[in-house]
Amino acid sequence: METLSKLLQPIQKKTDDTGNKVTVVGVGQVGMAAVFAMLTQGVTSNIALVDVSAEKVKGEMLDLQHGSAFMRNAKISASTDYAVSAGSKICIVTAGVRQREGETRLDLVQRNTDVLKMIIPQLLKHSPDTILMIASNPVDILTFVTWKLSGLPKQRVIGSGTNLDSARFRYLLSERLGIAPTSCHGYIIGEHGDTSVPVWSGVNIAGVRLSDLNKDIGSACDTENWKVVHEKVVQSAYEVIKLKGYTSWAIGLSLAQLARAILTNAHSVHPGEHGIEDEAFLSLPCVLGTCGVYDIVRQPLTDNELQQLRKSAKVMAQVQAGIKF
Amino acid sequence: METLSKLLQPIQKKTDDTGNKVTVVGVGQVGMAAVFAMLTQGVTSNIALVDVSAEKVKGEMLDLQHGSAFMRNAKISASTDYAVSAGSKICIVTAGVRQREGETRLDLVQRNTDVLKMIIPQLLKHSPDTILMIASNPVDILTFVTWKLSGLPKQRVIGSGTNLDSARFRYLLSERLGIAPTSCHGYIIGEHGDTSVPVWSGVNIAGVRLSDLNKDIGSACDTENWKVVHEKVVQSAYEVIKLKGYTSWAIGLSLAQLARAILTNAHSVHPGEHGIEDEAFLSLPCVLGTCGVYDIVRQPLTDNELQQLRKSAKVMAQVQAGIKF
Amino acid sequence: METLSKLLQPIQKKTDDTGNKVTVVGVGQVGMAAVFAMLTQGVTSNIALVDVSAEKVKGEMLDLQHGSAFMRNAKISASTDYAVSAGSKICIVTAGVRQREGETRLDLVQRNTDVLKMIIPQLLKHSPDTILMIASNPVDILTFVTWKLSGLPKQRVIGSGTNLDSARFRYLLSERLGIAPTSCHGYIIGEHGDTSVPVWSGVNIAGVRLSDLNKDIGSACDTENWKVVHEKVVQSAYEVIKLKGYTSWAIGLSLAQLARAILTNAHSVHPGEHGIEDEAFLSLPCVLGTCGVYDIVRQPLTDNELQQLRKSAKVMAQVQAGIKF
Amino acid sequence: METLSKLLQPIQKKTDDTGNKVTVVGVGQVGMAAVFAMLTQGVTSNIALVDVSAEKVKGEMLDLQHGSAFMRNAKISASTDYAVSAGSKICIVTAGVRQREGETRLDLVQRNTDVLKMIIPQLLKHSPDTILMIASNPVDILTFVTWKLSGLPKQRVIGSGTNLDSARFRYLLSERLGIAPTSCHGYIIGEHGDTSVPVWSGVNIAGVRLSDLNKDIGSACDTENWKVVHEKVVQSAYEVIKLKGYTSWAIGLSLAQLARAILTNAHSVHPGEHGIEDEAFLSLPCVLGTCGVYDIVRQPLTDNELQQLRKSAKVMAQVQAGIKF
Repeated sequence: METLSKLLQPIQKKTDDTGNKVTVVGVGQVGMAAVFAMLTQGVTSNIALVDVSAEKVKGEMLDLQHGSAFMRNAKISASTDYAVSAGSKICIVTAGVRQREGETRLDLVQRNTDVLKMIIPQLLKHSPDTILMIASNPVDILTFVTWKLSGLPKQRVIGSGTNLDSARFRYLLSERLGIAPTSCHGYIIGEHGDTSVPVWSGVNIAGVRLSDLNKDIGSACDTENWKVVHEKVVQSAYEVIKLKGYTSWAIGLSLAQLARAILTNAHSVHPGEHGIEDEAFLSLPCVLGTCGVYDIVRQPLTDNELQQLRKSAKVMAQVQAGIKF
Repeated sequence: METLSKLLQPIQKKTDDTGNKVTVVGVGQVGMAAVFAMLTQGVTSNIALVDVSAEKVKGEMLDLQHGSAFMRNAKISASTDYAVSAGSKICIVTAGVRQREGETRLDLVQRNTDVLKMIIPQLLKHSPDTILMIASNPVDILTFVTWKLSGLPKQRVIGSGTNLDSARFRYLLSERLGIAPTSCHGYIIGEHGDTSVPVWSGVNIAGVRLSDLNKDIGSACDTENWKVVHEKVVQSAYEVIKLKGYTSWAIGLSLAQLARAILTNAHSVHPGEHGIEDEAFLSLPCVLGTCGVYDIVRQPLTDNELQQLRKSAKVMAQVQAGIKF
Repeated sequence: METLSKLLQPIQKKTDDTGNKVTVVGVGQVGMAAVFAMLTQGVTSNIALVDVSAEKVKGEMLDLQHGSAFMRNAKISASTDYAVSAGSKICIVTAGVRQREGETRLDLVQRNTDVLKMIIPQLLKHSPDTILMIASNPVDILTFVTWKLSGLPKQRVIGSGTNLDSARFRYLLSERLGIAPTSCHGYIIGEHGDTSVPVWSGVNIAGVRLSDLNKDIGSACDTENWKVVHEKVVQSAYEVIKLKGYTSWAIGLSLAQLARAILTNAHSVHPGEHGIEDEAFLSLPCVLGTCGVYDIVRQPLTDNELQQLRKSAKVMAQVQAGIKF
Repeated sequence: METLSKLLQPIQKKTDDTGNKVTVVGVGQVGMAAVFAMLTQGVTSNIALVDVSAEKVKGEMLDLQHGSAFMRNAKISASTDYAVSAGSKICIVTAGVRQREGETRLDLVQRNTDVLKMIIPQLLKHSPDTILMIASNPVDILTFVTWKLSGLPKQRVIGSGTNLDSARFRYLLSERLGIAPTSCHGYIIGEHGDTSVPVWSGVNIAGVRLSDLNKDIGSACDTENWKVVHEKVVQSAYEVIKLKGYTSWAIGLSLAQLARAILTNAHSVHPGEHGIEDEAFLSLPCVLGTCGVYDIVRQPLTDNELQQLRKSAKVMAQVQAGIKF
C-alpha cells in the first residue's frame, strides 16, 4: 500500500508480545467483566479471548477493540482456536455448563469436567508455563479437577474461591460500620458459597478486633446478630442472580485483582484457592506472585471453624471420588 | 449497637457528598458498561443508578457494591425514584425503547420522547445545575428532544454522538497502519450511524495528513480503497449487534471519557453532539469542561462534507417537526 | 487573534473551577513530591502552589506545566500571593523553617508559629471552607498551632502525623515477612518521630495477629527482637536525611493518600493527627472524608502504650504553653 | 524465625522477577523524577537504581520503599554495583557531568563519553537484551555515543530527544488556545534544545491545521507572532533552570511515557531519537514498542526545515568525529 510506505519508514518487524498476556476462556458475563476490569485498570496490555461460539467471541473482541482509543492500546485477540492463547502468563477459565433442573451435583461436576478436559490440555499446549485461574462453578471442585487434568504443581492452579465472598463480607461490614470497604478487614475461607467460613476472630478495623469488643460476634448468642453479615454474603449470589439474572462485576473485579497480583509479582495476600490435605482445594489466605502461590497464611482457627472446613473437604472428596477423568 | 460505639468515637456526622456525582438512567448493557468504566477508571467516586425495574437496578447496585473493596470505595446507590440522583454533576441517559418491526423512525422517536418526558424533568428537579448527556438512540434527535424538554442552554446538553464512531475509525485506521489507536487521529462528525461523515482531510499521524500522501483518500476513485474504513465504522454497530446481541464496552468507554473531560474540566476536544443551525444536534469537535461545551472547533469541510451534514440536518429537522412535545 | 477566532466558535466563557482544588504552601522537596504524587496519581485536577520565593514557585509551576501533555490536563497555577489558592478544598502546608544549631525546640516552634501566623489567615481568607493539612515539623505541635490560629473545628485540621511512620513500619514488616507492604497491617500512633508508639497488639497479616504467635513481640524480652522494626522506623527519617539530605517521596505519597481520602470522601481509615484531651494533637486511626475527620477508631491500648501517649501529650502541652500566639 | 514459620506455610521459593524491570542509572533530579513518575503511574513494578554515590542511591531507595504501602508493592532495589540491574527490559541513563565554565562542547561530550564507557558495557553485561534510553545531555550526541559503545542495532538505542520539547510546545499552544495540552497536537523534531525544529505544518487541533488558518504561522512574517511559542520552548529549559536550579518533573514524565510505550508494546508514536543518515541521532516521530523503534514517520518537511535538520546533523557529525572512543 503506497500510502503506508509513504508514511512509515520501517525499521524492524513488529511483534505482539508484551510478556503479560492473559487469556480468558469463556466470554459470558463473568469472563467479559473480568476482561473489561483488566483493560480499564491497566492490569494487562494483551488479552486473548477463547470461546466455543465464534460469533459471540468475535463480537466481544470487536466491541473491546472499538474502545481501544479510550484505553491504553492493549492488543485484543479472539478465536475459537486455542492457538490465539499462545504465550499467556495467566489463563482464566470462566467457561462451564449450568446446573439443569434436578441434576445432581456430581452430574454437573462431571459435565464440567468433560468441558475442562477439552480446555486445559489446549491451554497448556500453547502456554506450558502459564498459571491457571479457575472461576467456573462449583469452583473448588473444578479447581481440583483442573489441577488433576493439568498435571501442574498445585501452586500454579488457583481458584477464585472466596476472594469474592471476602469482598462481599468487607462491603457488608463497611455498610454496618460506616467505614470504607478497603479499611474493613476480614476473611472468608473454605468452600465458595453456602458452606463458606467467616473467620470472625480476624475481623478488624485498624487492627482492632471486633471480637475483642464483642466476644460473641458471629455466633448464635450474639445479641447484635453480626452473623447476619455472613448470612447475607452467602445469599448475595442468589440475590443478585434473582435480581439481574447473573453475577458479573464483582467476580470480574475479583479475578482482575488476582491477575494483577500475579503479573506484578506483588507478594500480596488474597483468599485464594489452594490444595490442602485430602486432595481438596479450599480457599485460604495465599501470598501470590509471578509463580503463583508462594505461601499460605496459617490462620489460627477455632475448633468450630476447623470442623466446618473439614466437613467441606470431606463432602468435596466424596464428589471428587466419583469423577471420571 | 455497642460494638460500633466501642469501636468508633464519632466526631461529626458523615456525608455522602463528593462533588463529582454522576447519575446513570437506564441500567441496560450500555448504562452498566459506562458505570463500570467510570468506577474502574476512577472517573467518579459517587454513582447513582436509576431504572424503571426495581429488581434490575438493585441487582446491578449490589453487584457493583460487592466489588467495592477491589475499587476505590466509591459510593454506589440505586433506585426507581429520582431522588437518588440529587446533586449530580452529570446525568447520563441510556434509557429508551427499541425499534419495533415495521415501526417508522418518527414513531420510535415519539415513543422515546415520551420516555424522556418522564426522565428529564425528574433529573432537573433533583439536580438543577447538572449537565445532561444522552446516549439513547437515535442519539442526535433525542439530544435535541432532551434540550427542548430541559429548557437548558445548548452547551449543557451533550449527545454521545460520533465520539464512538470516531473511536472505531481510529481503531480501524490503527489496524491498517500498524500504529496505536491513540496515535491515529481522525474525526467522524455529523449524525451518529449510517450517515456519519468522516473528515478525511484531517486524518493524520504525527501531523502527517494521509490526504497529502494520497489525494484521493476516502473517495470513490481511491485505488487503495480507504473508504472501506468508514464503511466498516458504519457497519460496526450492526456487526457487533449481530454477533453478540448488543453493543456495550466501546459506548460505555466513550461515555466515561466524556464524563471525565467534564468532571476534570479538561478543556479537551471530543466529537460531541452540539446544537447547530436549523435546530439540529450534530456532532462536531467540542471543547469540553465543567460547564459543558466551551467551544466548537471549526473544521474546514469540503463541499461534499458540508452537503452531507446539511442533508442529515434536514432529514432530522423533518423528523423533529413531527414530534409531539 | 485571527487564527484563534478562525479555529474556535466560542459557546460560553471558560472557567478553571473543578471542585477538587488543592493548594500546597511551600514548594520544597516535600511539597513538590506531594504535588507530583497527586498529579501523577490523578488525585486532583487543579493545583495551586504558594511560596515566598517568586522564582522557585514559578520554576516549579513551569516544570509541571511542561509535563501536562503526559498527565491529564490538570490546571497548575502558582504565586507568592495567596489569591491563587482561592476556592481550595484542601490546603496542605509544608512550609516552615529548620532547626538552627543549638536552638531549643520551643524556639523552633515559635519561629514556625510566626510563619504559620502569616500563612493560615491568608488561606482561610481565600478558602473559608477548606480542610487544612499540616506537614511542617514538629508536625504535632504545628497542627495544634494551626488549629489555634485557624479557629476551625478540630476535624478540619489534620496533621500528616504518623501516616508516614505507619507506612515505614509496614514496609519494614514486609521486608522481614516477604509479604507485600499493603498486606502487612500495623499502626504507629502518637507523636510523629522519636516517641511514636507502635501498636504491636494490632499488627496482623490476614487477620492473624503476630502477637498471638509471639506474645513478647515488640517488647524487650522478645527473643526475635521485633522491636528493632520500630527502632528502624524512628531512625528512618534520620537515615534518609543523612544519606540524601532530606526526605521527600514517602512523605509526598503520604500526603497524597490523605488528600485522596478527603477528596473522594472515602471514609477510609488512616493514622491522622487529631486533637485529643489536654489540647494535644496526636495521631490516632481516623476515618477521613470530605468533611475531614468523621470518627476516631478507639484502639484498646496496653498500659505501657497509654503511658507513652500521655507522656508525649504532656511534653507537647508544656511546649505549647510557651508559644506566643 | 519462629513467628514467621508459625505465620506462613511456604509452598515455593519466591522470586523478584516481573518481566518489566527498569533500571535507572543516575539518581539526580531527572532520574528520580522519572522513577517516581513510573512508580506512581504504574509503568513498572520493578525498579533498580544505580549511582556512583552509595549514600545517595541508598537514601533514594529507602525513601521510595517507605512509600511502598501508598503505591502498588513495586520492588525497588539500588546499588553502586550494576549486578542490581540484571534482567532489565529498559535501562535509562540519566547520569553525566555538567558543562564547566569555559569548557568546549567537545570537551564536555568527551567527559560524558568517558562516563558512558563505564556505564554501557556494565548494563549490557547484566541485561544483554535491554533497550537503552538516554536522557543525559547533550542527548543527541550521547545517544550516538551510546549506540557506538553498545554495538546494538539503532532501534534499541533511544534518546529522550525532543519528546520533552514537543510536550512543552503542546502546553504553550494549549495556553494560547485555551484547549487541553493533550488535544493540541504538534511535533518538535531534530536536535534537543536550541536548534530544535518545530514542524508548524503539522500543528493541528482536531485535524484542523493552524497553517491552513494562518499560512505564515511560525514564520518571521506572521503578524500574530506564533514563532514566539517555539522560542519559549527553546528558552524553557534555561528559564526553569534559572528559576529552580534544574529541570526534573517534565523530563521525568517524558521518560516514563517512553518507558510505558515500550513495556506495553503500544506501537504509539513519540518524538524519539533515532539514528539517521550521516550517523547523527536526531528526533523524529517514532513508532515505539517492546523491541524499540518499529518505524519512523516520514514527515513532509519544508526546504527550510530540512535545511535546519541537516545543519544540526552536520554540526553533530563534526563534534562526533572528535570523540575518542
